[in-house]
Amino acid sequence: MSVAAVIQGTRAAIEADPANAAALFKIDGELVGTTEVDIRAGGHQFKVDEPAVLAGGDVAANPVQLALAALGSCQAITYRFWAEHLGIQLDGLSVEVEGDLDLRGFFGVDDSVRPGFGAVRIVVSPRGPESDERYQELARAVDEHCPVFDLFANSVPIARELKLG
Amino acid sequence: MSVAAVIQGTRAAIEADPANAAALFKIDGELVGTTEVDIRAGGHQFKVDEPAVLAGGDVAANPVQLALAALGSCQAITYRFWAEHLGIQLDGLSVEVEGDLDLRGFFGVDDSVRPGFGAVRIVVSPRGPESDERYQELARAVDEHCPVFDLFANSVPIARELKLG
Repeated sequence: MSVAAVIQGTRAAIEADPANAAALFKIDGELVGTTEVDIRAGGHQFKVDEPAVLAGGDVAANPVQLALAALGSCQAITYRFWAEHLGIQLDGLSVEVEGDLDLRGFFGVDDSVRPGFGAVRIVVSPRGPESDERYQELARAVDEHCPVFDLFANSVPIARELKLG
Repeated sequence: MSVAAVIQGTRAAIEADPANAAALFKIDGELVGTTEVDIRAGGHQFKVDEPAVLAGGDVAANPVQLALAALGSCQAITYRFWAEHLGIQLDGLSVEVEGDLDLRGFFGVDDSVRPGFGAVRIVVSPRGPESDERYQELARAVDEHCPVFDLFANSVPIARELKLG
């Protein structure tokens, strides 16, 4: 289905019944090595691991790189959808994301230091024939509607259960 | 290097000079199809895509599944490190993560609805011979020191730059 058809069909379905907007996403993981994790997400499987300096085998990207990849790819896809929705031509797009981590948090050397990213920087380079103003309009709409941007920018309620044999 | 050696070496390096705790993680992405994104993270490359209902080719997990995988794998690896640090035996671990998304946010049908996860649930199943109390102690330490748990639970400052031709 084209992006235009998906936007039209999904908006119509949601307007008919807001319950159609509810989506559940799910993954499961298994620690299969020192730091190597097998992930299943629907029909897709992939690995996550740490580099050697963090005791891993470096067979795949690590969790914080995966989080940055989630943000970069979500930005790219949200540009695609909102360009269509706003009638802005988008011929291509590159994105770079970087994040600062202070390892004192993860290792518990200083518990006043947060374990996660202290700051994240995104550089988005959309390509196409439109004016700068139109791409700026697009960028503002994307940052307001991008699911993973929202996850980084705002807190999410987490329920954590421990299942013991 | 073993987890014990990494913990000892990293803590010693950070105590000698806190600047050694600063780590920069980086990815870049390129929109190569309707929703298909090629990601490079250090020496690793992988794809992100949407399923057909979201106009994609379904060649890989999508950004929000990737974000959940980042959380699940980060939990698993932080259990490995903190089990070692606390002297708790960990023979294996499974993790399930699910998140609720209300698509009215992403599609802009209702701008009072957040585009990201409204709630996330984690179920962690560690395996090993220790008492329930010790695994509960481990779980509390992990949730305080897991970088991606912190990313979900708290807001991260984001700087976004738009680079136009």
